[in-house]
Order: sequence, then C-alpha cells, then structure tokens
Amino acid sequence: MNNTQLRVKQWPDGLPASGDFELVEDAMPVAGGGQLLCRNVWLSIDPYYRHALGPRFVGTAFCHPGDVMMGVTVAEVVESHVPGIEPGQYVRSLQGRMQAYAVLNGADVHVLPEAVFGAGPGKLPLSTAMGVAGIPGLTAYIAVTAIGQPKIGEVFLVSSASGCVGATAGQVAMARGARAIGIAGAAEKCRYVRDELGFEACPSYKSASFAEDLKAAAPDGIDVNMEHVGGEVLAAILPLMNYRGRVVLSGLIDQYNRDVPPPSPNWGILVAKSISLLPIRVFDWFDRMGEWERIARAMILDGRLRYREDISEGLETAGDRLCDVLTGGNFGKTLVRIGPDRL
Amino acid sequence: MNNTQLRVKQWPDGLPASGDFELVEDAMPVAGGGQLLCRNVWLSIDPYYRHALGPRFVGTAFCHPGDVMMGVTVAEVVESHVPGIEPGQYVRSLQGRMQAYAVLNGADVHVLPEAVFGAGPGKLPLSTAMGVAGIPGLTAYIAVTAIGQPKIGEVFLVSSASGCVGATAGQVAMARGARAIGIAGAAEKCRYVRDELGFEACPSYKSASFAEDLKAAAPDGIDVNMEHVGGEVLAAILPLMNYRGRVVLSGLIDQYNRDVPPPSPNWGILVAKSISLLPIRVFDWFDRMGEWERIARAMILDGRLRYREDISEGLETAGDRLCDVLTGGNFGKTLVRIGPDRL
Repeated sequence: MNNTQLRVKQWPDGLPASGDFELVEDAMPVAGGGQLLCRNVWLSIDPYYRHALGPRFVGTAFCHPGDVMMGVTVAEVVESHVPGIEPGQYVRSLQGRMQAYAVLNGADVHVLPEAVFGAGPGKLPLSTAMGVAGIPGLTAYIAVTAIGQPKIGEVFLVSSASGCVGATAGQVAMARGARAIGIAGAAEKCRYVRDELGFEACPSYKSASFAEDLKAAAPDGIDVNMEHVGGEVLAAILPLMNYRGRVVLSGLIDQYNRDVPPPSPNWGILVAKSISLLPIRVFDWFDRMGEWERIARAMILDGRLRYREDISEGLETAGDRLCDVLTGGNFGKTLVRIGPDRL
Repeated sequence: MNNTQLRVKQWPDGLPASGDFELVEDAMPVAGGGQLLCRNVWLSIDPYYRHALGPRFVGTAFCHPGDVMMGVTVAEVVESHVPGIEPGQYVRSLQGRMQAYAVLNGADVHVLPEAVFGAGPGKLPLSTAMGVAGIPGLTAYIAVTAIGQPKIGEVFLVSSASGCVGATAGQVAMARGARAIGIAGAAEKCRYVRDELGFEACPSYKSASFAEDLKAAAPDGIDVNMEHVGGEVLAAILPLMNYRGRVVLSGLIDQYNRDVPPPSPNWGILVAKSISLLPIRVFDWFDRMGEWERIARAMILDGRLRYREDISEGLETAGDRLCDVLTGGNFGKTLVRIGPDRL
C-alpha cells in the first residue's frame, strides 16, 4: 500500500495554486517507539500556510520544493506505540501534512476528547475540531476573552467576519455582552454575518463607499478591532477607534503575497488615541484548548455559536483552496476531506 | 501688582522658538470660591507641549495665538478658598501655565506631600516634583512596572535615555533586576547614561554606525523597548526585538515637527515576532502618584535613582527651551525658574 502525498513543486510567485504542488505516491511510513501511524481524515486550509512557501514574510521558508506540504490534520490512530493512545482514537496534529498517512510523535498530537467530538447526540462532528472547536476557534476565543477583552456594551469589530475565526470571535464577543460589527467582501458573506450570525452590521470592503459605510455602521466608534487584513481596510478602521481602543493583531493577509509590503499606518495615531496593538499567537495558548472545546460544544448545542464549512474532496484540491482562503474565494472554514471519518 | 505672562504670538512653523511667544503684563487674577491664588515657582518644559501649538499632531490645537502658553507648574499657595489647602503649601498643576501667578481650581491641583518634598534632611527639593519624582518619573515607573514589565534578566531599552523619563525608566528597570540599555545623542549624554547611571551601553543615534552599534550593544536582543523617538531609531530597534517583545509607546518625537509624518515601520514584524505595542498615557495613572513619590524618595535617598536638572531663569527663556527638548539641546529634566522657592 502506498502513501499519497501532496508535495511542493515550486514556491509560488504571488498567489499559490494547484500547479505549485504535485501528487506523489510514496512508500507507507513506519511508526517507531513513541510514535503513531495515523490515517489523515480532515485537512485544514489556513492563510498562514503561505508563509511556509518562501522566505518573504517571516524570513525563513519551512516547506521547500520536494517537501510534503505542511498542513494541520485530524487523523485516526491506526497503530500506536504511545502509552495512553489507542488505535481508533482521533488526534489533531500540526505535523500531519498534506498526505494520506502520517507518522506522528506522541508529543505532537492533541487527542480529541470523546466527551466533545464523535457521533451521536450532544457530540460535535470531527470536522469541527479543525475549525470552530479547534485552533481557529481557540484563536477567536483567546483574542476576545484574554486579549481584546471588550466590555459589556463595547463595540467589537472583526474583519474576515464570515471566516471561521472572525465569525467565532464576533459570536463570543456577543455572548460576553459586547456589540459585534463585521467586515466581509461578497454580498452573500455580508448577509450571512448580519442575518445568520446576528452581527449589527457588516459592510463590504469591496464597496467604493467602504470607509463611509464602516463609519455609518459604527456611530459609537470601535473599542476593539480584531485585525486580519491590514492595508486599506485597517486604514479605514483606525480613525474610528475610540480612545484606549485595542487592536488584536491576528494577521495582515493584504500583504502576504506581495514582494514589497504596503506602507503601514503611521504609529502617531496609536500615541494620540492611546491604542494598544496586541498580537494573538494561538500557538502560545494551547493550554486553554480543553476549556474552549467544552465552551464551544455548549455554545453550539444551545445555538449561540453557528459555523459554516466549505469542504472539498481530495488532496489535489488543496493548492487551489489555499489560493481561495488568501483571496476570499472560500465561504466558511475551509477543509479538504482526505479520507472518510470511519473506514 | 501685575501678572507676567508668556503668551503665544503665533503657531510655530516647524520647531518653536522664543520669537513665537511674547511677555505680557496682565492684571493680577482673583481667586473665587473653590479656587486658589498661586505663585508659580517652577515650570516644566516637555516635548508634548508642541501638540498645543497647532492642530497637526493630535487634530486640535489647545493654545491659540493670544493664549497664555500651557505649562505644568509647581506653585506656592498664596490665598486659598479650598477647604483643606492652606497658604504656604505647594501644589503642582497641569493648568498653571507660563505665568507668574495662576488662579487654579481646587480639583486641578496635586498638593505636594510634605513627607516627601521640602527643605531639610530626607526630603526632596521642590524641583523634583517636576521631574524625577513628578509626572515624568511616574511615566517611567508605570511604563516599566505596569506596562512593559521586563522580567529579571530581560533587556530593557529606552531612547532619550539621558532625559528624565528615559533615565528614570532605565534605573527602575535595573532596580527590578532587568538589564538596561540606552540610546542618546551627544557623546557626553551617552557617557552620563553609561558611567553615571550604570546602563550597560548607550549607543548614539547620531553615529553613522548606529544600527550596528545598537546590535552590538544588545547581543541577547531586546525584550522591552520604551519608545520616545520613532523614525530611523525605531526602525533600527524593531529587528532586534525578541519574540513576544513589548514596545511601550511613549512618544514619537521624530515626527512632532513635521507636516507630513515619515513612514512608520510595517506592522508585519509585529505579527511575525508577536510584539505588543502598548501606549503609556501618564494622565491615566495619576492615582499611582503617591506610590511613586514614596518610592522615588526612597530610591533617591539610597542612591539607586540619580537625576539631573537643566535649569534656566525666567519665563522669557521658555520658548527656546521648548525647542531644546524637541531637538536634544537640553541635558536632563528641563525646568524654568519663574520665582524663588520661598519668598
């Protein structure tokens, strides 16, 4: 039996696409002591994967041509040499990569708790461990509750609001008594954020009147902004921030595919308005994952937390989907199904 | 008897100077109910006064031509209509302005505690209530202990290190067990910071090799940067910041006198290194003033906190001194003596 892998063929020039990757059949990997042989089921597609494909953003590339492309996966344990982990359990790993099977070190997996994930009433589908009840959900939860901390009645703004992080962040902010405003692109995404998720407003950054639309949507100003975009979107937000506002810096997707980053807003406005810029690096907060899994399950079951998935079938779709999440061509948490939930 | 006042003659074009102000003799002011008649003794000269002279930085000018120029003063109470405040006590006020006498509302003064300030052993001179044991000192104390919070052994960097805020911040950081590095301009200032204050190093931003000098001075990187300058100084600092570093944003003096602000560093490095930008607005922290006055007195008496004053005589010198603090032409906390400590 072979292991199907999606390997990097070349570093993209600008936006990535399927042509930058190639499907390869490799020998089945073998698990040694302290390791697991896992069958990948779900692959998460996230914008930050772009940083792996060339040194331009973070200074070091971590996926070179010939490497199996990085990817966070949910996988079924097929064979275990790790005490306390049994075949049939499901794990999530940042080391799963874009391939059918992976050998993972015991220290590199998060076992999905059976009290939260699985079949049957009161359980969340495994796919949610990639999105709303997984790392993107934890990002949103920490950004709101531990970093931005909107107070009751304060205005919380999030860009990429129809995406998994943005949608979850706004709903967590509302659950804490704050007012949520979103920014999205396509009209159907703006409608979804406003009408299905219950945000107060969701102007489109694609509109020619975006800056005025945003101002009209935030008559009381903005207290907390969770920033995913940068560029002109950020430039429209900053003048609306209230004194002592907080910008939770989650990403700057506007500049990930450019050789020369665009100018950033002058820092003077931060001094004048006493605005804090606070980065969220979810990898620093994994000790809170169990807490969020329990809260996400409860909020989904009682209807306070809605989510949307955008699923494609098969590893060969991953390159194009990565382009989609970088350009807004997706709608909801973007997943690739590598194999069936249960064989 | 008249009241001598320094009034704004015109908004400066670029750097302010004495010619932008004029001395005027006005009638003595009269204190009503809830007010104090005060004789100004010390005037503090601070860079942020520049914001009052035209709308370019914070969007609104608060000193127009014809107005008495703003100024923080220490003053002797001459006549009191405020219960609990007696003639002969000393107060500090943000409303004192550049004039010999001021009528102040009781709510607008901070009474200098006699346990800290005054003549005699174990007391601090009144002038220190303008600097090291006053608002600049509190700025430094809060920036280090409440905002930047360098840990034991971490590297704390401060620009304008020979100034009152920078010098105090570095010494407070060292008292907490951190390592202090400064940045200054003139060679004698760099020597003072290194040899008299005990910072590990103090490269000059005026040197052609500044960026390399700074890198050599911080072989372990920088954990906390208290920023006063912006521009090229900040651009040299950011690449040296350690992961999860903190920038305490105190000022951006490089751009206060420009019509068009210079480009700010791209925010991408903040995402990549998970760096926080945290503003310090000392006006939000006045409830901690008593705490700092007691600590400053103790640290000065036991030798852990040194300070330096740069004093000129008479209101007519204030315009040029404001130019000095904006260009580095001063050396230490810059004060104007308006009148004698005690008549």
